[in-house]
Amino acid sequence: MSEEIRVKNTGLRGVTVADSGISFIDGEKGVLIYRGYRIEDLADRSSFMETVFLLLFGVLPSVEQLEGFTRQVKDMRRVPDFVIESMRHWPKDARPMDVLQACVPLLSMAEEHSDAMDRQVCLNRSIGLVARMPTLVAAWHRIRSGQPVLEPDAELDHAANFLWMLQGRRPDPATARDLDVCLILHADHTFNASTFAAREVVSTRASLYAGVSAGLGALSGSLHGGANAKVMEMLLALEHEPDIEGWVKEQLLQGDRIMGMGHAIYKTGDPRAVYLKKMGQRLGEQTGGKWAAISHKIEETALAVFAAQGKTTILPNVDFNSAPVYYLMGIPTDLMTPVFAISRVAGWCAHIIEEQFADVQGKPALYRPQAQYVGEYCGLMGCEYSPLDKRK
Amino acid sequence: MSEEIRVKNTGLRGVTVADSGISFIDGEKGVLIYRGYRIEDLADRSSFMETVFLLLFGVLPSVEQLEGFTRQVKDMRRVPDFVIESMRHWPKDARPMDVLQACVPLLSMAEEHSDAMDRQVCLNRSIGLVARMPTLVAAWHRIRSGQPVLEPDAELDHAANFLWMLQGRRPDPATARDLDVCLILHADHTFNASTFAAREVVSTRASLYAGVSAGLGALSGSLHGGANAKVMEMLLALEHEPDIEGWVKEQLLQGDRIMGMGHAIYKTGDPRAVYLKKMGQRLGEQTGGKWAAISHKIEETALAVFAAQGKTTILPNVDFNSAPVYYLMGIPTDLMTPVFAISRVAGWCAHIIEEQFADVQGKPALYRPQAQYVGEYCGLMGCEYSPLDKRK
Repeated sequence: MSEEIRVKNTGLRGVTVADSGISFIDGEKGVLIYRGYRIEDLADRSSFMETVFLLLFGVLPSVEQLEGFTRQVKDMRRVPDFVIESMRHWPKDARPMDVLQACVPLLSMAEEHSDAMDRQVCLNRSIGLVARMPTLVAAWHRIRSGQPVLEPDAELDHAANFLWMLQGRRPDPATARDLDVCLILHADHTFNASTFAAREVVSTRASLYAGVSAGLGALSGSLHGGANAKVMEMLLALEHEPDIEGWVKEQLLQGDRIMGMGHAIYKTGDPRAVYLKKMGQRLGEQTGGKWAAISHKIEETALAVFAAQGKTTILPNVDFNSAPVYYLMGIPTDLMTPVFAISRVAGWCAHIIEEQFADVQGKPALYRPQAQYVGEYCGLMGCEYSPLDKRK
Repeated sequence: MSEEIRVKNTGLRGVTVADSGISFIDGEKGVLIYRGYRIEDLADRSSFMETVFLLLFGVLPSVEQLEGFTRQVKDMRRVPDFVIESMRHWPKDARPMDVLQACVPLLSMAEEHSDAMDRQVCLNRSIGLVARMPTLVAAWHRIRSGQPVLEPDAELDHAANFLWMLQGRRPDPATARDLDVCLILHADHTFNASTFAAREVVSTRASLYAGVSAGLGALSGSLHGGANAKVMEMLLALEHEPDIEGWVKEQLLQGDRIMGMGHAIYKTGDPRAVYLKKMGQRLGEQTGGKWAAISHKIEETALAVFAAQGKTTILPNVDFNSAPVYYLMGIPTDLMTPVFAISRVAGWCAHIIEEQFADVQGKPALYRPQAQYVGEYCGLMGCEYSPLDKRK
């Protein structure tokens, strides 16, 4: 046992809890690396399928490996019929993140489970979850909209097939490529709250599905993956606002936050946000530029207010710039966090496998921190219990 | 930001991460306290309903408060019809912990959600989850066994009603009271892996349901709540073993663990295990004493081996002694971990509310630890990306 260490009530900020070989962030320099490769290289020159292979297997695939892997993912896109049949019983106004959280244990039910920990089994299940997450999101949207659930199309790649299953029309190649790049950019981000939750859950030797389900739960929070939907709600609310500058100043004067501004790690800019901003501007130019203009005014005003307060590290994050991009692709606001999940499931699975099979220097251990007890305490023997009928 | 602290690959053992006023363990003295009260007092003189009230509200209830609370729980026992209808589509061999993990988000779908954080709403949802967890476990067991799902019986208290819904007969009062005591003993245990997972998930402002779902996932692991089922599997495998002593010695010689032995915190005995051992002996006497005798032989042999190795802190834990108790109550082996969840959901909810509403000294923060990157790293600019067609 290590000597006692206290890092109370700071959310483990700045505390290094494990070794990991999956991704690396330099928050001062604005750098994000997956398995050695900068995300700019991956976004410019790779595909989401190749990035998933890199995250799960640790190396870039050969031509043959990528073909085989892509085929395997395509072959696993369908979900069991009982999952779709179950969905038809659910309230149509259910939150899509609740739907995903319900569906992942259903996928677990379709598997044979054994006590033996098997890396190959976990890899296959990871590939299955990457393959099926878009199917689940699209199927739920079709069911809640009273539209027929569509079969996956093996002719289409991962992002294009998702848009097809969601919208019932094949997307143009540029839109499909843009979404593919968004998936690359969101696929991993070291020990963020959802990834840490996934690792923590499987440290008990719980299944990969239990870990991914915990990741989905954490991602749904508005301080994490839920933020992209909150950004879009803000943009939509400001669509006809004549004085955006005044609105932003009033928000900040009241002590409220501007959704999509600031990051726990990045202090000089989020490299994903830089990339998505350019994408949003390009898409915006094709569609009138309304959201890019609103975003720009919010950013400009907020940064000026922050600068006047001497705060130079609160900058637009990935959610600020991904939300309008997804909107312009026709993705409903409440599916923006699920789209984040469609990408991040790759990172969660890579981390779960690392946690369970310890392919890094130190062997991970069951997470079991301590709390400082600050409650009632009447001597070591406890408070005196007074029977119910003697209580006031 | 705090200075950088490294506690790598030790599962945060010995690291104090937050203030909490809910429970306290003295691992050296073998003491467990809920909100100031020793579990022995609660087990001897209280009820599970009173213990849940204590955990959620921080004080023991008055007669009127306990009556009102018990009525509220009874009124919330039913689950929405669509949950039961969904279950009928699921594979009959699904693992019951997967079933619970699927059902909790379904309960979330039946709620109205808003962005506002409201303590009273969270308390009501907590009471609903405590009320409905037994209904879910029992309904699934009835469905998988091809038996009709039974309605909750408002005449029966929490434990008795669960056994009624599960087994279709009203239990004798002594059995119902024994199960109620088991639920008291399992209700909370500071920052164990499932509770920490639940707190971590809601630190993102995710819903109470997302936190409980993560708790269920962590509990399902064999190093955590899954251990009671593993203990029972061991006892059943040894039912006709003539040489239990030899089996135990061989296991330990091979470096395998004996399920239910040892605890991360308790070093002089688990107070819950002491209590449950007595219960198991009493129940065993009434039913022939087979399991108590096997347990005793395993414990005796293992402790002798450990003593010869100079290990004096590996002692029977709560799972070692709860498994045969549940078995004698007619609870199927694969429902033993779900029964743990029926109890621990109270602790998870108390911790989630503490995490989200910060009724302790420090305000909790979004959990966002760091990892030490030990992967590929080719200078700050990352490895050079070689295009697919240039790779070997």
